[in-house]
Amino acid sequence: MSFSVTVRDHLMIAHSLRGDVLGPAQQLHGATYLVDATFRADALDEHGVVVDIGRAADVLREIVAALTYRNLDDEPDLQGVNTTTERLCQIIGDRLAERVLAGEVGPARLSGIVLTLHESHIAWASYEVAL
Amino acid sequence: MSFSVTVRDHLMIAHSLRGDVLGPAQQLHGATYLVDATFRADALDEHGVVVDIGRAADVLREIVAALTYRNLDDEPDLQGVNTTTERLCQIIGDRLAERVLAGEVGPARLSGIVLTLHESHIAWASYEVAL
Amino acid sequence: MSFSVTVRDHLMIAHSLRGDVLGPAQQLHGATYLVDATFRADALDEHGVVVDIGRAADVLREIVAALTYRNLDDEPDLQGVNTTTERLCQIIGDRLAERVLAGEVGPARLSGIVLTLHESHIAWASYEVAL
Amino acid sequence: MSFSVTVRDHLMIAHSLRGDVLGPAQQLHGATYLVDATFRADALDEHGVVVDIGRAADVLREIVAALTYRNLDDEPDLQGVNTTTERLCQIIGDRLAERVLAGEVGPARLSGIVLTLHESHIAWASYEVAL
Amino acid sequence: MSFSVTVRDHLMIAHSLRGDVLGPAQQLHGATYLVDATFRADALDEHGVVVDIGRAADVLREIVAALTYRNLDDEPDLQGVNTTTERLCQIIGDRLAERVLAGEVGPARLSGIVLTLHESHIAWASYEVAL
Amino acid sequence: MSFSVTVRDHLMIAHSLRGDVLGPAQQLHGATYLVDATFRADALDEHGVVVDIGRAADVLREIVAALTYRNLDDEPDLQGVNTTTERLCQIIGDRLAERVLAGEVGPARLSGIVLTLHESHIAWASYEVAL
Repeated sequence: MSFSVTVRDHLMIAHSLRGDVLGPAQQLHGATYLVDATFRADALDEHGVVVDIGRAADVLREIVAALTYRNLDDEPDLQGVNTTTERLCQIIGDRLAERVLAGEVGPARLSGIVLTLHESHIAWASYEVAL
Repeated sequence: MSFSVTVRDHLMIAHSLRGDVLGPAQQLHGATYLVDATFRADALDEHGVVVDIGRAADVLREIVAALTYRNLDDEPDLQGVNTTTERLCQIIGDRLAERVLAGEVGPARLSGIVLTLHESHIAWASYEVAL
Repeated sequence: MSFSVTVRDHLMIAHSLRGDVLGPAQQLHGATYLVDATFRADALDEHGVVVDIGRAADVLREIVAALTYRNLDDEPDLQGVNTTTERLCQIIGDRLAERVLAGEVGPARLSGIVLTLHESHIAWASYEVAL
Repeated sequence: MSFSVTVRDHLMIAHSLRGDVLGPAQQLHGATYLVDATFRADALDEHGVVVDIGRAADVLREIVAALTYRNLDDEPDLQGVNTTTERLCQIIGDRLAERVLAGEVGPARLSGIVLTLHESHIAWASYEVAL
Repeated sequence: MSFSVTVRDHLMIAHSLRGDVLGPAQQLHGATYLVDATFRADALDEHGVVVDIGRAADVLREIVAALTYRNLDDEPDLQGVNTTTERLCQIIGDRLAERVLAGEVGPARLSGIVLTLHESHIAWASYEVAL
Repeated sequence: MSFSVTVRDHLMIAHSLRGDVLGPAQQLHGATYLVDATFRADALDEHGVVVDIGRAADVLREIVAALTYRNLDDEPDLQGVNTTTERLCQIIGDRLAERVLAGEVGPARLSGIVLTLHESHIAWASYEVAL
C-alpha cells in the first residue's frame, strides 16, 4: 500500500546542449518545462495527507523560481552540466529531496520523490529517487 | 512483464477538511475529481485483456455514483473521516478492490489497483494497493 | 485581424442549484472550475502584447481568490443567484471586464473578454462580452 | 455555416523581450510553443475536406523548422521585433497565410487562418486573419 | 454578449476515404473521435442555463451511439459520403441541430451549434451552424 | 535512483475483436491510439541522456508506420491475434524492445520499456517489460 501527491508548476529557460547525438539541440534554444513533483509515502499522516500540499507547492515554486527566465548556460551552479531534460529532472528532484529531508514540506515520512519534466506535448522525462 | 488498464470517470462533491495545516480547505468548499482506476495484472486472460473494460467502467461508475453530487461532510459512511484527496483515493480504491475480489469485473487474476484523483490541472493524488 | 491572450487559473467551490431540470445538482455538491480568461484586441500595443500578461493573471487571481474555498450558497454577493456554470462565467467575466475598463490590466484597448469555466474533462461553458 | 481544420506542431526557442512591463521575460530565457494552425472555409471541397491535411501539416512543419532550435534574438528576419507570444502568432500566421495564398496547401478557398501558440499549460495567445 | 455550453463524448469507427489527396487514408483504417458539442445562446434561460446539460449530453450520446463501433463504409445512411473528419462534423452537427430544433434538449432558444471532432492529439476539425 | 524518457506518437487502425465479453467491439470498428513509449535506465550516459531521443522517436515512428492506416484483421503478422488495446501494447512494446536490444536507439543500457496506448480520453492500457 502506498500513496502519492503530485503538484505541477512550470519554468521557461534557454540553454544549449553538448554532444553530437543531440543534433540541433546543440544550438542555443529554449523550453517550457511543465514540472510535476510527486511525493510518495507508505502511509498518510494524522491529517490524512502525504504532505502539506500548500507547503509542497511553495517549496517547488521556490526551486523553480531559481531557474526560470534564465539562460542555463550562464548559471554558475550549472557550469559543466549538460542540462538535458533528464539531467534537469535530477537537479530539480535532488534539490526538492534536500528540502524534504530538511523538513520544509512538513514532518511526513516520505519514501521517495519523482520529478517529471514535460518538454513538449510529445516528450517528457522522469527521475525517481528513494528517500 | 506486467499489464494495466485504466478507465476515467469523475465526481463532484462538497466537503470541508480538518487540521490547521489544510488552511482555507477547512472551509466548506468543493471539487471535481477526475477518477482514474488502474487495474494491474501479470498476464492477459484468454481474450487478451486485463479486465472486461466495460464491466470495470460500470463498477467504477457505481462507486462514483454513490459519492457524487453530495456533501461528504453529511455522508453517514464518512463520519470522522478527513476526506483529503489522498484519503478519498484510498476509500474509492478499497471499494473497488473489494468488488474486484468479489469477481464483479470478471474472473481475471489482478495483481493490484491504483486509484488516482485529480483535484485540478495542477494537483493530484494516488493510492496503490496489491490484491 | 485580431489577437487574444488567455490565462488559466482555477477555483474550488461548494454550491447547490435550483430548478428541477438540474436534477442531482440541486443537492449541495461542489466543483473545481478551471478558469480561462481570454483578452481580445484588434491590434497589439507598442510592446507587441495584448495585455501585460502578468497583471492580467494577477487580476484574475484576485477575482478567483474572492470565490475559491467557499460555499457559494452562503456568499452575500450571490444571494438569489443560481450559480450554474454559465452564470458563474458571466459573474467572473463581468468582474474581469470591470477591472479591465478601470485600467487594471494596463492601458491596452481591448475589444472583448471570453471567460470559460471547465467543470470537468467532459463539460465546460463560456461567456463572451464586448468591451 | 463554416468549417475548420486544425493541426498541431511545436517549436523550442530562446529569446528575450524588451519593455519594463515584461518583467523577468526581459532576460534571455526560452519556451516550448505548441503551435495550432487552424484553416477556415465556408464550404468543403469535392473531397469533403477544408484542406489537404497532410500538405497543411507539412507546410506548418516547414515554417516551424525555420524557427525551432534557435535563439530568436539572433535571427536576421526578426531584428527589431519584440518576439512576444502574440507577435510570434502573427509572424507564423502571416507566413502560413502567404503559403496558403500561393496554393501550397491545395486549391481550397479558405476564409481565414487562426494561429495559436501555447507557451505553457496556463497561458496561450492567438492571431486570426481573414484571407 | 453570448454564452455557450460544451459536452464531450467519443466514438470509435472504421472507414476508408476516397480521393488521391487523402493518401494512406484511402485504405480501410479507423479513428477514435473525441466529440465536442457546443450549444450557443445569446441569453440564459430562467434557470441560468443555456441548455439542460443532462439532456444535451443524452441526445449527443444517442447520436454517437448510432455511429460508434461501426465500419462507416457499410452504413446505409452514409453510402456515397466521403466520411472525412470535416464531413463527420457536419453530419453529427446537423443531426444534433435537428434534435435541438425539435426541442429535445429543452425549450431554450439557441443561436447555433459547433461540432468538433478530434481525430488525434495533433489534428481536429469543426463545423459551425446557426440555428 | 532511476530515469525515464517518454516519446508520444499515434496510429489510426481498424480492427474487430473476438470474445463475447468484448460486446460491440466484436464488430469491425477502429481507433486512434496515442502511443507513449517510455525508456527506463538506472543511470544517464556520458551525454546526460537515457537515450538519443531523436533516434528513439524515429524507431517508434517506424514501428507505428508499419501498423497505421491499416485494418489489423488483414495484417499477416496479426492473424489469430485478438488485437485488444492490452495486446497491442505488448506487440508494439516487444517490437520496440527488440530494436532497443539491437542497439538502434543507441548504446545506452536500458532497464525496461513501458508502452502505453490511449484509446480515448477515458481509457488506456500499458505494458511493461524489463530488458
